[in-house]
Amino acid sequence: MTSDWQQQAKKGSDILKNSIPKQWLLPVDRLPPVSQKSVVDFPRQSGLLNENELLITDMSATALVAEMGNGRLSAEEVVVAFLKRAVLGHQLLNFAKEFMADEAIARAKEHDEYYRRTGRLVGPLHGVPISVKEHISMKNRTCNTGYVAWVDKVTTEDSFLLQLLSKAGAIFHVRTNQPQSLMHLCCSNNITGTTLNPLNRTLSPGGSSGGEGASMGFKCAPVGIGTDIGGSIRCPAAFCGVYGFRPSSLRNPATGIKVAASGQETIRGVVGPMASCSVEDLELFQRAVLEQKPWNIETSLMPVPWKMVTPTRDMTVAIMWDDGCVRPHPPITRALRHAKNKLVAAGVKVVEWEPYKHQHGWEIISALYYPDAGSKQREVLAESGEPVRPLTEWALSYSRSTPLSHPEAWVLHDQRDVYRDEYHALLNRHGVDFILSPTYPGAAAVMGESQYWNYTAVWNLVDLPSVVFPSGITVDPKVDVLTEQDKKYVAKNEVDEREWHKYQDPERYEGASVGLQISGRRFKDEETLAAAKLVEEIIKGET
Amino acid sequence: MTSDWQQQAKKGSDILKNSIPKQWLLPVDRLPPVSQKSVVDFPRQSGLLNENELLITDMSATALVAEMGNGRLSAEEVVVAFLKRAVLGHQLLNFAKEFMADEAIARAKEHDEYYRRTGRLVGPLHGVPISVKEHISMKNRTCNTGYVAWVDKVTTEDSFLLQLLSKAGAIFHVRTNQPQSLMHLCCSNNITGTTLNPLNRTLSPGGSSGGEGASMGFKCAPVGIGTDIGGSIRCPAAFCGVYGFRPSSLRNPATGIKVAASGQETIRGVVGPMASCSVEDLELFQRAVLEQKPWNIETSLMPVPWKMVTPTRDMTVAIMWDDGCVRPHPPITRALRHAKNKLVAAGVKVVEWEPYKHQHGWEIISALYYPDAGSKQREVLAESGEPVRPLTEWALSYSRSTPLSHPEAWVLHDQRDVYRDEYHALLNRHGVDFILSPTYPGAAAVMGESQYWNYTAVWNLVDLPSVVFPSGITVDPKVDVLTEQDKKYVAKNEVDEREWHKYQDPERYEGASVGLQISGRRFKDEETLAAAKLVEEIIKGET
Repeated sequence: MTSDWQQQAKKGSDILKNSIPKQWLLPVDRLPPVSQKSVVDFPRQSGLLNENELLITDMSATALVAEMGNGRLSAEEVVVAFLKRAVLGHQLLNFAKEFMADEAIARAKEHDEYYRRTGRLVGPLHGVPISVKEHISMKNRTCNTGYVAWVDKVTTEDSFLLQLLSKAGAIFHVRTNQPQSLMHLCCSNNITGTTLNPLNRTLSPGGSSGGEGASMGFKCAPVGIGTDIGGSIRCPAAFCGVYGFRPSSLRNPATGIKVAASGQETIRGVVGPMASCSVEDLELFQRAVLEQKPWNIETSLMPVPWKMVTPTRDMTVAIMWDDGCVRPHPPITRALRHAKNKLVAAGVKVVEWEPYKHQHGWEIISALYYPDAGSKQREVLAESGEPVRPLTEWALSYSRSTPLSHPEAWVLHDQRDVYRDEYHALLNRHGVDFILSPTYPGAAAVMGESQYWNYTAVWNLVDLPSVVFPSGITVDPKVDVLTEQDKKYVAKNEVDEREWHKYQDPERYEGASVGLQISGRRFKDEETLAAAKLVEEIIKGET
Repeated sequence: MTSDWQQQAKKGSDILKNSIPKQWLLPVDRLPPVSQKSVVDFPRQSGLLNENELLITDMSATALVAEMGNGRLSAEEVVVAFLKRAVLGHQLLNFAKEFMADEAIARAKEHDEYYRRTGRLVGPLHGVPISVKEHISMKNRTCNTGYVAWVDKVTTEDSFLLQLLSKAGAIFHVRTNQPQSLMHLCCSNNITGTTLNPLNRTLSPGGSSGGEGASMGFKCAPVGIGTDIGGSIRCPAAFCGVYGFRPSSLRNPATGIKVAASGQETIRGVVGPMASCSVEDLELFQRAVLEQKPWNIETSLMPVPWKMVTPTRDMTVAIMWDDGCVRPHPPITRALRHAKNKLVAAGVKVVEWEPYKHQHGWEIISALYYPDAGSKQREVLAESGEPVRPLTEWALSYSRSTPLSHPEAWVLHDQRDVYRDEYHALLNRHGVDFILSPTYPGAAAVMGESQYWNYTAVWNLVDLPSVVFPSGITVDPKVDVLTEQDKKYVAKNEVDEREWHKYQDPERYEGASVGLQISGRRFKDEETLAAAKLVEEIIKGET
């Protein structure tokens, strides 16, 4: 017998089930065994994608647009290739919320027709398939934000961001999974279940944009869209070995992105791009959005055009090895050490970064997430009666039992601004342009264990634009062993103890990629992306 | 017998009394009779200022800087002239909170010495005396914000804005009065009493920057600094016949400006310039502040440099005759009609502006002023036990008896953003660049009667940069009579009835200047100032 909430949830899972293009489903017996951890090599083995489709789905958005621009690829074949890969990815990783195959192919044909007629591309994102986190609402479709109560709530307008991307030529082919309440660095809900990490299916893909992490990691789209109020773009980018960008607040349009606590603005969630192949694709996305001057319509936004920045080695990068609260696992430290050596060898000025009161920062931001004691989230959960999932409980455990009074919240607003100003004053004083840091204490989290957010959340508070990119280092249990000294490590506090203990068995993280995070001053989004591109190139370069 | 709060208040009035440079006080019998309404011509009659000092105090800041730059004036004589005029103004208008004569003269001497040594000015505001609203705090001085409880609270740092202005060469010679709680469009408190309007001393100088209004109207400084969360720069500028600019939020630095509800950020108070002579001086101030890139230090600010804009007649100005809620008094309508005729004659495209849901706007902003039910203001009032003044009661009457819950406030945040977007969409749709409107239902308010804010507050909500400038029209009871039709006017609502009724006797407003308000799109601060300059020139020009 199914309960009321299960009947309601089924409406959501049915939307997904009915949307899957059945012609591309592999029979279960042709799928790798459930016990197989990494599935990133499976597309080639699957037989579903032909050689051309494998080539297409390995390309960046930038390269795809170039090939469509010179007529060597059609939008239709690009969209079909990624759709097939996405269906396969969904079978292996459960990352999708809804496929839009027919609409996407129809739109691709329109693009091809336009190109044939005019010899021109529709826009800078012509024919680029983009996967979209589900709570970025779409016209005439449901938007559930991970809540069972909302599975049949239909939206009447496209999110403003999607309108802009669509004008730029992008094609949306799949909507992706997110956790209940959005406040997990993981990706599980009571509607369509739990998304897996393509690099190692016993690991979490991260969250809350975990569906996007999986989508990028499996190359179900060259570009995806996530949202981030504490690490929700950057953590899945790191966990899945791909690229993610958290812009400064008030640059990308937020209208039409559905959350329970709509109107909460003291800590602003931001929307930003993820990419499977390159930092360049993150730039492509940002440029396509901001050259349309969204601030003329969504007037909360800063009226600052996107500018082109050429990266230069004449910069100072500070390395933050540890945030002073939670010690990163050995592979993270190895990746930072490798990065440091490469940067120094390339002539970049590298200094050490002393973390500035990160625990204090966490106390501010975690209190400001839930000034209402989480009442809005609890209300929507109660509306359906769905069970509260463990990581939702975990996130809500940071909320007080009673709401903050407005004056209590105002004290925290002032503390937030002072902290942000002080952090920038330190950057100015030390002449530091960018901070290179871990994204998370580990390379990824074992499913259900993603509990520590503050390597990312601190930059939400300070509002630093931050790029996550794969360091090129993956966890190797033979290399990333605990030394005798590591084993004697005395944790700084209980949280540190908990997180450090998770690495007792390095095998658990086998195959995980280490994603590093590079952060620049507030509103220096363009400079930060440019620096990320250069830093990645140096780190992964020869010499 | 004096009560506790009176003893406490006396500390504040003593600071003022002790600071007055006694050598420049006129004996009471040489002052005009208390019954004399206008005192703007008194400086010439007083015998206190010599011909040179009268000339100096009639000059704009822009002109003064030019004269100091070519060595024809010294900073010292400029500062002394304005100090003398300010002392006289204070005797007539009770506008000052604290004089800083010795420090100002000493600083002027340093500037003169620097100029002698280098042949250069200290900065773009070299030697410009600036009067400062008291709650913009100053190092090692008290900052009471109009509350008796705070009269002995000493600040340890200059407000960031004052640091920037000081670096640009400005000299602060007098701090000015503000009302209890700051939430009056009038200027009275229990510390130093009530400030009067120099054009007609039975009228209010407006508020809350009423001390600044009087300072500018009597030319106690060429430039002043006010703050505005609902009209507090623009209303005193209009009432006193001078210039005021409310910038878009997040352009001018706010650090160090003291308010009871610090951290309330859903409706942002802004700080901006006032000027006695010209729009150009408002631009001078803004440029001097923003060319120092304050956003590198106060990181809440928008990183947008000040740009020079040349005004052009190729613009569309929409005239809003009435906000649909409260009918303006006849002199206001006359001034708008005059402006319209002049603009049309000058070839400017003029259209009519249909106000968009201003009552709805008022409901949003008035609720967001006091989400805490005014608890912070009441707390500081209760701390001293000072009596609550009638216009404080009036302002607090808009607060609910219980605080808004956070989710209730969040609904209002969303409504605010939607309203702002919708207002801009209307501007875009109609191709309107600027709205020319009343600043207040009347040319000024009779003392104690300033009750309707929404001609100004609506632009705080929509966040339009707005300039107030004198239209050149002053109330003439012989011209601005109520017609037979006016007398039959059926008010739209009770508020309209109340405000219209105030004009039954036009004599009450004798000599008041009509200040008009011109508003541009959010963040188009430079364009709005440029347009104001041109519009004023056209309106006051020949033909």
